[in-house]
Amino acid sequence: MPGPAIILSHPQLGENIGAAARVMLNFGLSDLRLVNPRVEWPNEKADVMAVGAVDILKNARLYERTEDAIADLGFVVVTTGRDRLMSKRVLTPEEAVAELAVEVREARPCGILFGAERTGVTNEEVILCDAIMTIPTNPKFMSLNLAQSVAVVAYEWWKQTEVKPDFKIPTKFRRTHLANKEDLVGFFEHLEGELDRTEFLFPPEKREGMVQNLRNMWHRAELTYQEVQTLRGIIRALSGTKNRRSPKTKD
Amino acid sequence: MPGPAIILSHPQLGENIGAAARVMLNFGLSDLRLVNPRVEWPNEKADVMAVGAVDILKNARLYERTEDAIADLGFVVVTTGRDRLMSKRVLTPEEAVAELAVEVREARPCGILFGAERTGVTNEEVILCDAIMTIPTNPKFMSLNLAQSVAVVAYEWWKQTEVKPDFKIPTKFRRTHLANKEDLVGFFEHLEGELDRTEFLFPPEKREGMVQNLRNMWHRAELTYQEVQTLRGIIRALSGTKNRRSPKTKD
Repeated sequence: MPGPAIILSHPQLGENIGAAARVMLNFGLSDLRLVNPRVEWPNEKADVMAVGAVDILKNARLYERTEDAIADLGFVVVTTGRDRLMSKRVLTPEEAVAELAVEVREARPCGILFGAERTGVTNEEVILCDAIMTIPTNPKFMSLNLAQSVAVVAYEWWKQTEVKPDFKIPTKFRRTHLANKEDLVGFFEHLEGELDRTEFLFPPEKREGMVQNLRNMWHRAELTYQEVQTLRGIIRALSGTKNRRSPKTKD
Repeated sequence: MPGPAIILSHPQLGENIGAAARVMLNFGLSDLRLVNPRVEWPNEKADVMAVGAVDILKNARLYERTEDAIADLGFVVVTTGRDRLMSKRVLTPEEAVAELAVEVREARPCGILFGAERTGVTNEEVILCDAIMTIPTNPKFMSLNLAQSVAVVAYEWWKQTEVKPDFKIPTKFRRTHLANKEDLVGFFEHLEGELDRTEFLFPPEKREGMVQNLRNMWHRAELTYQEVQTLRGIIRALSGTKNRRSPKTKD
């Protein structure tokens, strides 16, 4: 079943993982990825809750870090209810699914990232993603259960892509080949390494904020693979390191 | 909060009742009714799952029979995935919510009936209701968890009826101060000047196309004034020209 990957970052309860797997299968999704689950894995409570969807759990891939879990994906939406005050687009589930559907139709891997039960996603995780998705809720009680959040998004997925086969195409520009997260992170680390070397990211207490703003800015550009390669070439040209091998350089 | 009553017929798991209460409050519903629950009541597991929505559980009304639970209601929709071969209208969640919203607006009590976890609603219960609601699901795995069914319907309720007074969804980036074209062109020329100096824009016959692609990429990022200044700082840092005055530098 083609569809976006569902990535659960540091999930704390087996029941929620199982319930998420069940509702994924209910609504036609199958690619479950877990980042460092805080429970024993495989998990008996997850299996009980998944009922007929245990195969989704069996095939779930485990990762140590969120970066690894989304490395092969292009467009990634992150789910959060809090205002992050970041310059990223904020989409409704409906809007997010419309954009994800375009990616899937063009056979470009994409995904939806959900944070841990108590803490949600970290700012670092938000920075790694292309857009924020916020499920509209009662402002007096916004805290949605993890599996319920997956249910809402999976329902929107099925509703838009299966019930109405001619789902609408968002008015977004077409990209040929969006850089995946591995390429992007390689570029970020390359640039930040050079900026550390030249003491641009100074003083140390401001480094984190500066890096965050830069990464958000690059994300907003929705870079293609080719553009990432060009930017890395520019870094090497400017810094006169054309022939020095950077550890993550591909070319 | 005005809205349809949620009626759970013979629920078997406290966890599901609690999760249903939580997601009701998330999406602005508060009238929970239980027909002969198959668990101890009040129920500790329900309280744990409800988190901040325990008041919904405390105020839930208990009934012996479904007839009693819906006695004061006019329009009642019953949730089932199975084809009942009855001459009743079958609605999607979207359609059902649209009809329920009309009832609520006219102050006519209405509700949505959900069957027990394993068995669903009985034919007798379906007969008592005005319309059937079927949540569209993967035909290969239709069995939705009870609380997930409530989540989908409650989400549709909130989505369609909430006037969203203070929940504004910015579809555009939240930028404080977009760079004007003068700032942008100054940056382009600064970068291109350095790239000429380092012979990155080579060979000459390809220069124009390369410059065009780069400028398009930067435009797509919709840079702020501050980001343009940061990028110029990066160029100076990388190229070791920190103290060399570039003709269009502002700072």
